[in-house]
Amino acid sequence: MTTTNIIATANAALEAELAAAINNKTKPLGSLGRLEQLAAQIGLIQQTTQPQLRDPAIIVFAGDHGVVAEGISAFPQDVTWQMVENFLADGAAINVFARQNGIALHVVDAGVNHDFGLRDKLLNKKVAAGTRNFAKEPAMTAAQCQAAMRNGAELVAGLSGSVLGFGEMGIGNTTAAAAIMHKLTGIPVVDCVGAGTGLSSEGIRHKQAVIEAAVALHADVTQPADVLATFGGFEIATMVGAMLAAAERRMVLLIDGFIVTSALLVAARMQPAILDYCVFSHQSDESGHARMLQALHVKPVLQLDLRLGEGTGAALVYPMLQAAVNFLNQMATFSSAQVSEKSSG
Amino acid sequence: MTTTNIIATANAALEAELAAAINNKTKPLGSLGRLEQLAAQIGLIQQTTQPQLRDPAIIVFAGDHGVVAEGISAFPQDVTWQMVENFLADGAAINVFARQNGIALHVVDAGVNHDFGLRDKLLNKKVAAGTRNFAKEPAMTAAQCQAAMRNGAELVAGLSGSVLGFGEMGIGNTTAAAAIMHKLTGIPVVDCVGAGTGLSSEGIRHKQAVIEAAVALHADVTQPADVLATFGGFEIATMVGAMLAAAERRMVLLIDGFIVTSALLVAARMQPAILDYCVFSHQSDESGHARMLQALHVKPVLQLDLRLGEGTGAALVYPMLQAAVNFLNQMATFSSAQVSEKSSG
Repeated sequence: MTTTNIIATANAALEAELAAAINNKTKPLGSLGRLEQLAAQIGLIQQTTQPQLRDPAIIVFAGDHGVVAEGISAFPQDVTWQMVENFLADGAAINVFARQNGIALHVVDAGVNHDFGLRDKLLNKKVAAGTRNFAKEPAMTAAQCQAAMRNGAELVAGLSGSVLGFGEMGIGNTTAAAAIMHKLTGIPVVDCVGAGTGLSSEGIRHKQAVIEAAVALHADVTQPADVLATFGGFEIATMVGAMLAAAERRMVLLIDGFIVTSALLVAARMQPAILDYCVFSHQSDESGHARMLQALHVKPVLQLDLRLGEGTGAALVYPMLQAAVNFLNQMATFSSAQVSEKSSG
Repeated sequence: MTTTNIIATANAALEAELAAAINNKTKPLGSLGRLEQLAAQIGLIQQTTQPQLRDPAIIVFAGDHGVVAEGISAFPQDVTWQMVENFLADGAAINVFARQNGIALHVVDAGVNHDFGLRDKLLNKKVAAGTRNFAKEPAMTAAQCQAAMRNGAELVAGLSGSVLGFGEMGIGNTTAAAAIMHKLTGIPVVDCVGAGTGLSSEGIRHKQAVIEAAVALHADVTQPADVLATFGGFEIATMVGAMLAAAERRMVLLIDGFIVTSALLVAARMQPAILDYCVFSHQSDESGHARMLQALHVKPVLQLDLRLGEGTGAALVYPMLQAAVNFLNQMATFSSAQVSEKSSG
């Protein structure tokens, strides 16, 4: 993936044009808050003062994690493939929210420990039937990790839209994400670990101990690609490849919760300019997410106490992007509407 | 308006049914956060475990304020009627966001200082051509205030939908709202006053002084209806009447920003059960709004640093209500999808 070339969106002339367009709309200066920032960001990504959102899509990346053998999840591993079936049957939260907001949904087997057979609606990018247990050995080989990242880039090459949301499903993956977060930010493990799908406080302490021991075992691993291979999941590595490819194609990337942000953290360590293309959809209730967003120096759009994954936050934030683009393209200006401007201070 | 009878939505049996329906969906317990609270609230309002959102509408109430003579606004008074024209011409932010989210928009002249003539799309509920200057005398008579509240109830009687959002336009109305907030909560004036549409810090100090002097002048006014008549605007009083009528009809009320919340504050002091019917759309960037929401013991859904009014926050939060109702009605359950439940802690 070292061939990816993501270009920073900074463009002083266009930024000034966008600011003027936003400020001439019939509203007090700055009064649309975050929507004004989103409008300007999307304009810079698309290099225009009249950005458009075309054919939005969300990909849900599914994978299994060998580290579940350590008893770090409240749910059994079978829930990964069962939830993939639920996605294919249109019964999960992400199906409901994507449909509501007109977002195409794609489901990818990036490495689930289950044989789905040939399935019309399931994209097969399985690298292996789950990762190995990183409490004992690296989760994947370097070759497997590269294969997963290539898979992600291939998935993006098949898309035509201008917005791509990222979601995931993988029992055990908050443990992988917490380990990645600790390794790439230096934030203490205790601040990276949360309840996941619903651990008790005792369960959280055990999960923390498992991660502490694993990072000690793999203490020599420091480079982003190596951290990804050692602690990541196939769904996370496939996402990293997809994110890099999507930003290279100047798409708007909708980043979901804790696990998706851990993938973005890896991608941003490889190519910092990717951050220009990201909308951080929401701040998850998973306790490490707020710190991870701080470490990236970014601010989420929504705070709804979600901790579901699947890309649900990415689907829910999409109407806010529509609102940002729509006000920029559709609102009258002070002069077109013959509204008086500010008179005094 | 003393005949309004708003019934609290509390219903232990239905609450238990709603909790069971929400908890059986294929997701970790509680993982949809605020959306789960919204789903339960809307279920209680509609007295069903399968709530529906029908024909949502937003009413924008416009009125002028005599207190603008004190120089408390960054924009001239003419902007009130000019923005009403902008609403009628589909050029304002609320037009864009209501259209995007499939919400019918109604614009009401509750007391604008302008002769619009007969206009197809403008609802005429003008009590007078603006209020009097409350720095010198009560803004309206008791009879005018009652007429405005009756007007609000009549507007609601003409609606068929299950969701009503409230918006406003009125140069000077953050000054009215701040005075109402101070009188009904006891919060010091300095904490009730903000920049409105864009005052400088000097302008804010002057606005504060005007309000301090006015509340001293009208120190004997304490009852909610009297506070409303003394400091309110026709758009605020008409909103109060509409809110009470909408809650009586068991509609979901979408409360917007600082001014709309000041109207709700009056309504809640008259009929506390109205709070059961309210969704607090967002926390405005207008500095007093956070404190006003705290005083009501409520939490906003969105925090987008908006300070535009017009009902824009109400329009923007609507997709979150749709998501709440949709997940409750459309998601699979653990048993229907054959997904394993939580196995450990």
